[in-house]
Amino acid sequence: MASAITPRDKDYSQWYNDLVLKGGLADYSAVRGCMVIKPYGFALWENMRDQLDKMFKDTGHVNAYFPLFIPKSFLSREAAHVEGFAKECAVVTHYRLMNDPNGGGIVVDPDAKLEEELIVRPTSETIIWNTYKDWIQSYRDLPLLINQWANVVRWEMRTRLFLRTAEFLWQEGHTAHATAEEAIAETKQMLDVYAQFAEEWMAVPVIKGVKTANERFAGAEDTYCIEALMQDGKALQAGTSHFLGQNFAKAFDVKFSNKENQLEYVWATSWGVSTRLIGGLVMAHSDDDGLIMPPKIAPLQVVIVPIYKGEEQLKAISEKVLVLVKELKTLGIRVKYDDTDNARPGWKFAEYEMKGVPVRIAIGGRDLENNTAEVARRDEKTKQTLSMDGLSSAIKILLDEIQANMFNKAKTYRDSHITQADAWDDFVKILNEKGGFVSAHWDGTGETEDAIKEKTKATIRCIPLNNEQEAGNCILTGKPSAQRVLFAQAY
Amino acid sequence: MASAITPRDKDYSQWYNDLVLKGGLADYSAVRGCMVIKPYGFALWENMRDQLDKMFKDTGHVNAYFPLFIPKSFLSREAAHVEGFAKECAVVTHYRLMNDPNGGGIVVDPDAKLEEELIVRPTSETIIWNTYKDWIQSYRDLPLLINQWANVVRWEMRTRLFLRTAEFLWQEGHTAHATAEEAIAETKQMLDVYAQFAEEWMAVPVIKGVKTANERFAGAEDTYCIEALMQDGKALQAGTSHFLGQNFAKAFDVKFSNKENQLEYVWATSWGVSTRLIGGLVMAHSDDDGLIMPPKIAPLQVVIVPIYKGEEQLKAISEKVLVLVKELKTLGIRVKYDDTDNARPGWKFAEYEMKGVPVRIAIGGRDLENNTAEVARRDEKTKQTLSMDGLSSAIKILLDEIQANMFNKAKTYRDSHITQADAWDDFVKILNEKGGFVSAHWDGTGETEDAIKEKTKATIRCIPLNNEQEAGNCILTGKPSAQRVLFAQAY
Repeated sequence: MASAITPRDKDYSQWYNDLVLKGGLADYSAVRGCMVIKPYGFALWENMRDQLDKMFKDTGHVNAYFPLFIPKSFLSREAAHVEGFAKECAVVTHYRLMNDPNGGGIVVDPDAKLEEELIVRPTSETIIWNTYKDWIQSYRDLPLLINQWANVVRWEMRTRLFLRTAEFLWQEGHTAHATAEEAIAETKQMLDVYAQFAEEWMAVPVIKGVKTANERFAGAEDTYCIEALMQDGKALQAGTSHFLGQNFAKAFDVKFSNKENQLEYVWATSWGVSTRLIGGLVMAHSDDDGLIMPPKIAPLQVVIVPIYKGEEQLKAISEKVLVLVKELKTLGIRVKYDDTDNARPGWKFAEYEMKGVPVRIAIGGRDLENNTAEVARRDEKTKQTLSMDGLSSAIKILLDEIQANMFNKAKTYRDSHITQADAWDDFVKILNEKGGFVSAHWDGTGETEDAIKEKTKATIRCIPLNNEQEAGNCILTGKPSAQRVLFAQAY
Repeated sequence: MASAITPRDKDYSQWYNDLVLKGGLADYSAVRGCMVIKPYGFALWENMRDQLDKMFKDTGHVNAYFPLFIPKSFLSREAAHVEGFAKECAVVTHYRLMNDPNGGGIVVDPDAKLEEELIVRPTSETIIWNTYKDWIQSYRDLPLLINQWANVVRWEMRTRLFLRTAEFLWQEGHTAHATAEEAIAETKQMLDVYAQFAEEWMAVPVIKGVKTANERFAGAEDTYCIEALMQDGKALQAGTSHFLGQNFAKAFDVKFSNKENQLEYVWATSWGVSTRLIGGLVMAHSDDDGLIMPPKIAPLQVVIVPIYKGEEQLKAISEKVLVLVKELKTLGIRVKYDDTDNARPGWKFAEYEMKGVPVRIAIGGRDLENNTAEVARRDEKTKQTLSMDGLSSAIKILLDEIQANMFNKAKTYRDSHITQADAWDDFVKILNEKGGFVSAHWDGTGETEDAIKEKTKATIRCIPLNNEQEAGNCILTGKPSAQRVLFAQAY
């Protein structure tokens, strides 16, 4: 099985697809650009979702659910928003099918045309702010801190499993505030939540920053983001948090009476992460033998495989294992005992390596005699023989160690791939040969940004938060610049 | 606030709408037939979903996610299915909008017409069985026990919040088996799961039965169901579990090689419950003062309201309350201390009654002196003064008592509304005056069923499982009948 994975060096893109498909995370579907999230992939998403949901609730948010459909006219209400989102989207025009009078199967009933077309939500600012209008009258109704877990559709032309699909799953937070300060604080707080989640749970180091005007969310005053680095040196935007100012409040006429009984427009934020994170997780950690799952969100943390000759030996091994399984479960560890007889141990080992299970325990005849077990860790592919006494505690510590090691490894790689460039040739060379982030001066104009993208495919990923101020000259135009920004080619 | 609810006796339908809207469960949206599930309603749904999800996983199921869109041609593959589901559905015909060249805002881009229209899923049998074709080759791949939590769309003409909406949230289980026996056992197992959930968690008694051919799911060999009774004497189908035979396997050519290496079509089930359950919950338990939430799934189980004069007394009360809150949380109880000063206690009482919070604790000056608290239960609207010592344990017991009382109350009502009828006049009279289920003989034909529906609006809700066999004569035609079935007017 494992040998079927295309090595990273040979074809990085195929390597990624192999991991997603053979690792059991997702599959293609009959619908262009839409994927099927398979049970193993969905279990991973559930773990991610549950942890994020807890973090949202701990910061005072509640969940709700808004309609899938958005009236076409809503998209036009906010000028920038319509430019960004009204292009490639799924449009519902009819509400009924009928038998073809000419016997050609079922066809759209021409009489069932909607008066106004409905758009399958690409994001929900418009429908939500249209609702908030009814919910917000007074400062007492604020802040409104609502999140939604939902599916959204963007009719992407080039799709890739998890990274860019026509339909994807995500969460979108939409909050309403009485002041700009409070809304900005919320925007930053949620960026911190995302960064903490990426680093502590996904073991993926991220850079927090703010987007340039070119890369801003359509309708935002400021877009904050976390940027991660993949093993091929490309960056991945892993989450965004937008300060929307009063743009949507004005577009949907959402006002509140303040403590002085004066009417003001409400201030807004929105923030989201999606199943795209799974693509980032795969590309940040995996190797040529398969996925490597960070223990904290791994669907399965420990797998135990018996190596036996005959039923009697299996029975003796199973007796010991069942005690261990119980202990591990008591410690809250997700464990599976794979005693199925339809595959040999070697095949099982390769299968669980492919799926990235952090710890594999094998117990054979000699282990039985010695009261030991062979413990293999997926991240380093090392093995050690440990006593069965106190094994569950040792495994718990090992899982923490793997989590920390995965983060450190990814961080070392990321840190060694932030390179300063002060001359155009260097800039291009780094992007083409080494990859990663390039820290360079920029004159602050969208035109220069576009020109650099045109020449190198690199975009400004972000202006890091708390960025060091340093006078310099734009890498392309030589014009004066007050700070470096981070460029990279990106997914 | 509470006075704003229309009494049941005056206008049952308006009473229901008042509860849903003023209780904070849901709101209308700008999109015809689509509702907004508000935070309080969504918290209820989360509790229901989490418990159901646990029960599904405990019975060996895993979650996955399949595309929102279904190619139009898929619906036609299964003959009965297309009749049932290809009628009223949302049809995506285009994938792009553009600026109107005549300056009329944004319009559908005529060049972006899909070759084949996509249907927003009304249910997912077709797209899922098209996928299972790739996942199932051998008996080793079976059973496949997959569930999906998703939104679905059925373009209903008459909609009602939760009970019948164009878009709704649900879960749909889709399992694949090697034998008919195993699939039938799965169908029945999931019906039992639904019945257990309805009775033990929602405190709603249900009758388990099987549907007549007329009422069967489009594409099923047999549809099992749970039927509940609302306070107006109408029945509500609360969940269905379908034995699909080999219909979808044949439609999508899904075969497996059995242990004898012969190819056979796979056997299927599907089963689902939806946000409709919330409508049933509201109508089974609430009264003219508002909602009444069963403690086990109540978003909030206990609310504590201080009754004080001056900051100092509030401080003294709060000190005691915070200890109690901590104790209650330790016991896993969802509790809120409402010490906001923007409303008087009486207003808060009415508000929490409207929202159906099972237990309300009020603590005032005299309670402080006596080390007591006033404990009010929502279901019976009774109050008692209890000592603060051991109060948390007493509350825990009280919550169990309320849960049991709510179920018993609903069951007493339901049981007293199953009436036998042996003459047509009685049958009609019971339906018109008393309501509820009428147990009557039926000649077994769809024609008679249709005729009875035409005359009385009553349908056969189900043939109860393990139904007593008893010779008799059809209530309408007088033809011989081997058993009674349950009729009712229904939502």
